[in-house]
Amino acid sequence: MDLITVRQIYKNKESLLNSQVTVGGWVRSLRDSKAFGFIVLNDGTYFETLQIVYHNTMDNFSEISKLNVGAAIIVTGTLVATPDAKQPFEIQAEKITVEGASAPDYPLQKKRHSFEYLRTISHLRPRTNTFQAVFRVRSLIAYAIHQFFQERDFVYVHTPIITGSDCEGAGEMFQVTTLDLTNIPKTEEGAVDFTQDFFGKPTNLTVSGQLNGETYAMAFRNIYTFGPTFRAENSNTTRHAAEFWMIEPEMAFADLSDNMELAESMLKYVIRYVLEHAPEEMNFFNQFVDKELLNRLNHVLNSEFAHVTYTEAIALLEKHNDEFDYKVFWGCDLQTEHERYLTEQLYKKPVFVTDYPKEIKAFYMKMNPDNKTVAAVDCLVPGIGEIIGGSQREDDYDKLVARMDELGLRKEDYDFYLDLRKFGSTRHAGFGLGFERCVMYLTGMSNIRDVVPFPRTVNNCEL
Amino acid sequence: MDLITVRQIYKNKESLLNSQVTVGGWVRSLRDSKAFGFIVLNDGTYFETLQIVYHNTMDNFSEISKLNVGAAIIVTGTLVATPDAKQPFEIQAEKITVEGASAPDYPLQKKRHSFEYLRTISHLRPRTNTFQAVFRVRSLIAYAIHQFFQERDFVYVHTPIITGSDCEGAGEMFQVTTLDLTNIPKTEEGAVDFTQDFFGKPTNLTVSGQLNGETYAMAFRNIYTFGPTFRAENSNTTRHAAEFWMIEPEMAFADLSDNMELAESMLKYVIRYVLEHAPEEMNFFNQFVDKELLNRLNHVLNSEFAHVTYTEAIALLEKHNDEFDYKVFWGCDLQTEHERYLTEQLYKKPVFVTDYPKEIKAFYMKMNPDNKTVAAVDCLVPGIGEIIGGSQREDDYDKLVARMDELGLRKEDYDFYLDLRKFGSTRHAGFGLGFERCVMYLTGMSNIRDVVPFPRTVNNCEL
Repeated sequence: MDLITVRQIYKNKESLLNSQVTVGGWVRSLRDSKAFGFIVLNDGTYFETLQIVYHNTMDNFSEISKLNVGAAIIVTGTLVATPDAKQPFEIQAEKITVEGASAPDYPLQKKRHSFEYLRTISHLRPRTNTFQAVFRVRSLIAYAIHQFFQERDFVYVHTPIITGSDCEGAGEMFQVTTLDLTNIPKTEEGAVDFTQDFFGKPTNLTVSGQLNGETYAMAFRNIYTFGPTFRAENSNTTRHAAEFWMIEPEMAFADLSDNMELAESMLKYVIRYVLEHAPEEMNFFNQFVDKELLNRLNHVLNSEFAHVTYTEAIALLEKHNDEFDYKVFWGCDLQTEHERYLTEQLYKKPVFVTDYPKEIKAFYMKMNPDNKTVAAVDCLVPGIGEIIGGSQREDDYDKLVARMDELGLRKEDYDFYLDLRKFGSTRHAGFGLGFERCVMYLTGMSNIRDVVPFPRTVNNCEL
Repeated sequence: MDLITVRQIYKNKESLLNSQVTVGGWVRSLRDSKAFGFIVLNDGTYFETLQIVYHNTMDNFSEISKLNVGAAIIVTGTLVATPDAKQPFEIQAEKITVEGASAPDYPLQKKRHSFEYLRTISHLRPRTNTFQAVFRVRSLIAYAIHQFFQERDFVYVHTPIITGSDCEGAGEMFQVTTLDLTNIPKTEEGAVDFTQDFFGKPTNLTVSGQLNGETYAMAFRNIYTFGPTFRAENSNTTRHAAEFWMIEPEMAFADLSDNMELAESMLKYVIRYVLEHAPEEMNFFNQFVDKELLNRLNHVLNSEFAHVTYTEAIALLEKHNDEFDYKVFWGCDLQTEHERYLTEQLYKKPVFVTDYPKEIKAFYMKMNPDNKTVAAVDCLVPGIGEIIGGSQREDDYDKLVARMDELGLRKEDYDFYLDLRKFGSTRHAGFGLGFERCVMYLTGMSNIRDVVPFPRTVNNCEL
């Protein structure tokens, strides 16, 4: 069908004025008198709507006037300037065709609906202003991330979703199986007979693509992953979903400081991209969702991120222990309250915290010369706390094996990973960015359920 | 670390000649005499390698000369032109540091290895020429697809991976569960007690994001998905994997002919992008993997795709029934032999086959006025057969319900999908592109296991 989009109309308004256009879209509101009527039309391609004026000289004037909110129509008419009106132009309709009416029980009426209610109609909520803005921005962020890495010649790797290993022993994983759950086959010893399962062994949904990603960094130097990951954690918070997307870049011939440079450039790139490509949406968020949003993002753009070691950070935070629910001490895991205090109160800008105690970080992180801390880094940002976690990886075969032995990890489960330290090992580093957390950060939305099209959480897997 | 990449050296060779550079990479081969040695270095950023010359004036000359293939080194030296040599330039090394040696049992020696063997070392095979080419091109194709849709303002939607519905009743799905398989909880009636499972009900891995995608097309007009999908099919062929990625665009206010236009533009865009951005890799495939590859792709670029209805196609094919293993007749499903005959022998270019019998297509496809065929389309390309399948969707509530009744589908399982036909329904259409099939098509690789980084097939879930 040869339809122009509302976005094209706004972008080319000068050249289109006084010419005939045909648009298709959905009725956001409609009011009419005996002689004429007004329709506010949205076609989903642009945050702004288009005003349509139609007259009773039209054959189907009464059909149109009876339309409900949500109806799909195709309008042919002339684009005319309206210098005295709120909107810059309108369409004087010559013909309106109804593609599909909207039943009177359409759940999205003109009034404002709560986010809670809209979660119950996840198939319709992208038709509202807020969710149209959220999910267009989500799409733009995803693309900006690809563009950032591809411009730098990083190779995009699809690491596997179904996995036979459990990566960092991260625990709570979803099992994947084709066994008949009503009648699980058993071995003679009474164990589950996985030889009858699809893969011939137990398999799970991935919690991270990092270890696989490292194998590709050792071939391509710079790679990134961008795919779904899963946690079967029974935690019903506003920040956790069972299914979420992650970006995990990995660089060979790179250390922790390269890692931080990459993370800082990436965050700034993405913020800049979204401000430039979705100004209407970002203004909307700033007005209706989080009045500090644009200030905060612009401040990040204009800041050089701070750098502090974990040990220094603990010393700084200990002075304020009376303000915390959880008191800090050297060796403790930083809570969100501590992270936010560091970035919001002490540094007032994003901060990289480095060199954490080895006990609270994963086995694959590079041991520092002090033998107590590892070359880990978390990036903390105002308004949210940790947004990125990464590390330089242990590239020394013997040290890695020693650490695995300490932690009781079985070498035979990590043969492929140890091979990377045996054949042309090199310093390498990478990080993980939770995509949903990034979307929340850039939109000001405070519940992860409102930035995932069809969220999956405990006892919730609708549509 | 401040290293230049081999890609940067090749791209900026004029300005870099006779200046000092530092590169990091892996030894592809090494030969030495008493006075000097040559190293062929690959750093994974570029298909071509870099020659390094080093002399016995270097402190660690003997350490370097003992290196095995696969070792990681950092080289500082001067880039000098070599007008009489095979390669255009080389690096006269001033300093070489060993980052990581390579053990003598490094599996990738200079000889050619079979694809079968390389599948057993999927963590190391991206270090070979073929797989470095495959997986860089895979990355470029993925990005080209994003770029194509984003340039056209399509919204990228992450449809869910874990799902409580089974989409088109496509059958063989993987179950996702946190139940203890050794001790499945049962209800009083002896059924599996899914209230104790993570989502409180049975869940599976998605086989398609289309139905979810449609809900977003009805909000944004044009959307696309790009994510992993799963089939638990027990088929051990060169074209099937249990886990693969799919692209599924969906357009509102669009019909079958819009759908075909989009598919044709997308395929041509992606081919053009890869030829432009990976000429070295594409020449390599053409020389060593499939000597007809570039001819075929260029022919596709320069062809207007043909259009034929299923009914016409059957009439054409029936004349050649003596050449087929499976004889064609009106109502039969087209086999690969028929598809390839159509596109390779009869049309000698890509062809869209439209309007298939409703019995062999999914319930959601739009019924044609003949009441026997539906507005489906498959795109067939030389060398492979079907690469894209799509349709205009049934947008009439009553017709869709009637078809679901015919097929015994329960309305309550598709409430959200029926809502789209109740509230502002409009003609809409979309298609699915199997990403791996697309990569095979553009590289000439003939086994799906060789275009997926870590393939998942029956009894195979390594790494």
